[in-house]
Amino acid sequence: MITLTMAQEIISAALGHARASTMPPMTVAVLDAGGHLIAFAREDRSSLLREKIARGKAMGALNMGVGSRSLVERAEGHPHFFGAITQLAEGELVPVPGGVLVRDEAGEIIGAVGVSGAVPDADEQCAIVGIRSQGLVADAGA
Amino acid sequence: MITLTMAQEIISAALGHARASTMPPMTVAVLDAGGHLIAFAREDRSSLLREKIARGKAMGALNMGVGSRSLVERAEGHPHFFGAITQLAEGELVPVPGGVLVRDEAGEIIGAVGVSGAVPDADEQCAIVGIRSQGLVADAGA
Amino acid sequence: MITLTMAQEIISAALGHARASTMPPMTVAVLDAGGHLIAFAREDRSSLLREKIARGKAMGALNMGVGSRSLVERAEGHPHFFGAITQLAEGELVPVPGGVLVRDEAGEIIGAVGVSGAVPDADEQCAIVGIRSQGLVADAGA
Amino acid sequence: MITLTMAQEIISAALGHARASTMPPMTVAVLDAGGHLIAFAREDRSSLLREKIARGKAMGALNMGVGSRSLVERAEGHPHFFGAITQLAEGELVPVPGGVLVRDEAGEIIGAVGVSGAVPDADEQCAIVGIRSQGLVADAGA
Repeated sequence: MITLTMAQEIISAALGHARASTMPPMTVAVLDAGGHLIAFAREDRSSLLREKIARGKAMGALNMGVGSRSLVERAEGHPHFFGAITQLAEGELVPVPGGVLVRDEAGEIIGAVGVSGAVPDADEQCAIVGIRSQGLVADAGA
Repeated sequence: MITLTMAQEIISAALGHARASTMPPMTVAVLDAGGHLIAFAREDRSSLLREKIARGKAMGALNMGVGSRSLVERAEGHPHFFGAITQLAEGELVPVPGGVLVRDEAGEIIGAVGVSGAVPDADEQCAIVGIRSQGLVADAGA
Repeated sequence: MITLTMAQEIISAALGHARASTMPPMTVAVLDAGGHLIAFAREDRSSLLREKIARGKAMGALNMGVGSRSLVERAEGHPHFFGAITQLAEGELVPVPGGVLVRDEAGEIIGAVGVSGAVPDADEQCAIVGIRSQGLVADAGA
Repeated sequence: MITLTMAQEIISAALGHARASTMPPMTVAVLDAGGHLIAFAREDRSSLLREKIARGKAMGALNMGVGSRSLVERAEGHPHFFGAITQLAEGELVPVPGGVLVRDEAGEIIGAVGVSGAVPDADEQCAIVGIRSQGLVADAGA
């Protein structure tokens, strides 16, 4: 499992990466395997919907069992199906990079990290840096 | 009507088919004619939204009175109408194969089976195998 | 974790207990630690709200970290507080016996079983019988 | 305003107080003046509804402009009115101590801290310790 201490260090590493770059204000959410929030941080001046976007990316990854990058192609290829299941998910199925599954050594999903604030590739990179800082496997999708 | 015993055997046959193939973890829901859940199984490591997708396929079939395969063409041909009724259905109108009506000898709808986890054609095949194992008629749509 | 096989055997033992008694038609839900449905069974002629009641008992136990029997006193002693958090839980906080936590040997919560159909004490007994059939610890609250 | 750094230190001080006592696993949420989440932490084994309860206490304080302790008397004295506005607030009006307004030197509300996990008086004490650690004024209601 992802402990609170690990989740806080994931956030610290993710935001450290954002600050070492020139990214705008960022929001980071760390969820457990059941989709429940463990830790969260919204940087000063990060806009109002950022919490829901970051969580929607992370929860979308857990909802479908793939990193949110994999959802992009699915949404484009099957828009009606994707529209229906987005409604089933109450929006928590955001098809853009930045929702990254956290796996343990055995490959089991133990949670997910969602990041929002910069361009999607940069958001995803923050999540990956955060997850790897704890010696865990980041599965961003493909 | 579909009894609990029959519903459990439908699930057993559907999952047996999945395990005899190389399908990923599957989720199966059996609904009665009123759309209420009779029996349900989510295989280990089947992702979080699978319950809603499986039920959304089965309920979509009951909602419109056709197997969910028939909903694909309708969604593509009439996207605005389909978007509106998807919202009326609160998402339970998933336009993809895998929601299969169960009919009795007289052709009456007595329930529906929804399957999610693999590609849609494989999902649908699991549902059909399950339904036929009980001597019932599977109506997948066309 | 509770595997699908374990969840199905929990249901089988719980319903076996009900059938060995003179209980009315019963409904049983088995949830994982994150509150997601693993397996479910509704006996023939169990009424329409039973799914939501069984799940609401089990989810209520997970929501508060206590067996649902413990919620009775809280609801009676603090009705306004309980009313507010029931709304936060979207109803999934049913204050009546029959939502029983499943703990492993180390005492960790690994899921919950909810039962509805008979009187609450009998519902709870079905859940306990089911959980213990798998060598797991049943925490019904007090 | 409450910066992210301040919010994280409020959480750290609140949880430090809980750990120096013998409190069960705790959950802490820090909201800005608009009710949006700045930072959040859920300790290991804190149960599933704790996020919503902690936020519901803090948001309830902001919703009515008083610490959540003040809502207890209002709920008891005007149960029908309170029931109606709880529904308007979608439950985010939890009438129990532990939702504490954060005020600046001039007395302006700049956010709120919500804590859940122990008995209400202890929850509230964690929030107060956290807020005061940043030299801010804690308004718990009366």
